[in-house]
Amino acid sequence: MAGCPVVVKGHPSHPGTCELAARVIREAVQTGGFPEGTFSLLQGAGNEVGAALVAHPATAAVGFTGSLRGGRALFNQAAARATPVPFYAEMGSVNPQYVLPGLLEDDPAGFADSLFASVTLGNGQFCTNPGLVFVPEGKGSVAFLARLRERAAASPAEPMLNAGIRGAYAEGVAALASLGDVQLTGGDCPGPGFRCRAAVAELSLNDFERHRDRLEEEVFGPVTVVVRCPDTASYTAVASGFPGQLATSIHGNASDLEAASALVDALTRFAGRLVINGFPTGIEICQAMHHGGPYPAATSSRFTSIGLASIARWSRPVAFQNTPDHLLPKALQEKNPLGIPRTVDGTIQPPANQPPSQKP
Amino acid sequence: MAGCPVVVKGHPSHPGTCELAARVIREAVQTGGFPEGTFSLLQGAGNEVGAALVAHPATAAVGFTGSLRGGRALFNQAAARATPVPFYAEMGSVNPQYVLPGLLEDDPAGFADSLFASVTLGNGQFCTNPGLVFVPEGKGSVAFLARLRERAAASPAEPMLNAGIRGAYAEGVAALASLGDVQLTGGDCPGPGFRCRAAVAELSLNDFERHRDRLEEEVFGPVTVVVRCPDTASYTAVASGFPGQLATSIHGNASDLEAASALVDALTRFAGRLVINGFPTGIEICQAMHHGGPYPAATSSRFTSIGLASIARWSRPVAFQNTPDHLLPKALQEKNPLGIPRTVDGTIQPPANQPPSQKP
Repeated sequence: MAGCPVVVKGHPSHPGTCELAARVIREAVQTGGFPEGTFSLLQGAGNEVGAALVAHPATAAVGFTGSLRGGRALFNQAAARATPVPFYAEMGSVNPQYVLPGLLEDDPAGFADSLFASVTLGNGQFCTNPGLVFVPEGKGSVAFLARLRERAAASPAEPMLNAGIRGAYAEGVAALASLGDVQLTGGDCPGPGFRCRAAVAELSLNDFERHRDRLEEEVFGPVTVVVRCPDTASYTAVASGFPGQLATSIHGNASDLEAASALVDALTRFAGRLVINGFPTGIEICQAMHHGGPYPAATSSRFTSIGLASIARWSRPVAFQNTPDHLLPKALQEKNPLGIPRTVDGTIQPPANQPPSQKP
Repeated sequence: MAGCPVVVKGHPSHPGTCELAARVIREAVQTGGFPEGTFSLLQGAGNEVGAALVAHPATAAVGFTGSLRGGRALFNQAAARATPVPFYAEMGSVNPQYVLPGLLEDDPAGFADSLFASVTLGNGQFCTNPGLVFVPEGKGSVAFLARLRERAAASPAEPMLNAGIRGAYAEGVAALASLGDVQLTGGDCPGPGFRCRAAVAELSLNDFERHRDRLEEEVFGPVTVVVRCPDTASYTAVASGFPGQLATSIHGNASDLEAASALVDALTRFAGRLVINGFPTGIEICQAMHHGGPYPAATSSRFTSIGLASIARWSRPVAFQNTPDHLLPKALQEKNPLGIPRTVDGTIQPPANQPPSQKP
């Protein structure tokens, strides 16, 4: 859409799926009349293919989804080039969830079910997985945790993307269990097909503070860590220490939310997206979407990797000064032949023929 | 304007001017009711102050104007931080000018005068200085060059910003003169006060191609290099090899410009701004301005350092999902209390009270 040819590095776990997808795209390139070379797929098991693509002089910008370690290594490489190029990495995130007491007492089991459904969506392999949940201690949290444990213990073991990711999940869950007074339910990895079971870890706010560095690191997979807090007064202070996150949520009933302004302020300082009464999994591709955030959630907090604004990663502005109409791109010609909304002398001019509820 | 406190590194050549400016800004901060610490000035002669500011954990983004060497060193430092931060450097550029034959024959002396005025504006110390001029050989170019030499020879020596910049100019001009069959007029540095005289260097397209790497590097100061080309057919091919530039121009009469589309395409591949029949010096602060460009003109080609869009360097998007009105920033509240234009469900909605020619 931005006019740039694309070279995709296939994932070594799914060379066949990558090839099937690439063939469909190549066919669309041909039937759509796009130039040969608009799309290419390169496969390779090691890191060499990705590194060679980032280093290539014709590469003008790079998009990446994956781990912090992999993303940071390629970001460093892109920045160290003789001609540095933008490197848009969207990396790990624990996406902290803040639960307010009214909602938790209103429907502890329903909230546990909704959380568990989000944690286990795609067997927990979404970057927007709610990996850390702060709850106020009380009657609500007891019922909520009981239900959550029950769901984790009863959940079937589901497949992970590959053996390495399953292995990292098993190690990550074991590491969580070793942190002080953590109570763990589920998380075992039985059977063939890179399977694993969802896990729920519970600990106190004191233990969270003690092991905060470890708990801020994502364990990729269907696991969430519930932090029991004496009350919600600590939420704003806890939030102020977070590294960049893709998303965060506040869960509360109407009266909980009356006084949530300070918490909203604290959360938007570290997150790219704030959700009220919803989980971050499930991302709508629309104009208002921002899927990104401060480092280490992403390497470039100004850009989104999903949604209509994501095209800005692959374009750059050019000013045309004193240029006669016939030398201008159509988008800038006096008569607006494309019929697009434009700002002229400081005034936004929607196209005359814009229907009342035009959607992209 | 973006809500970020600003720390400015003063220029060691003008500590007094920096302090005077800073006092005025501090006064405005106080009388405007902004928080203490909204603006600070740090002075220092070495590179240590700038390096410490880039390294500081509270620094969230950096803007820079200066040399490629200085900008690249700090860019590397910003990218290597544990938490990398955006580094918006606007660096050197030779801003190539392409002159078409009709215009050159219509008014060779007038064009020479206009070029010379731009080259010597601020004694050549603008980053948009036209440092490289391609002309077609012929009657027009002979008269043009005669007039340009005359102007350079007769121009008074004017002060540069400091001794180091004057010294680099003298060295840069001497290096130009040593390149093959270069004819040099002016460029001597007589008298006190860091003075220097404007310089015009002339060479053939063959010599330009032979020494291209050297000639693409900016000599900071009132110097321009005129490249005599056998014809204008070579312009597009020459343009395709350029590294990133802040600006570029095409100069032509109406019939010259009829066939300039391919040249426009070639120039917008390397430049952030294209000017037709004008010089890049003199930058309007408006919504359409883009002062930036691909590396090495700037480190981040997506952003402008001048004009209304420059504020985007200091802000980042946050998506608010399912958020009740009282928890939203005013800009997003249902009733649009700020009266700003917004996109709602894919439709641009200008504020109802927008006057027909509202300017910022």
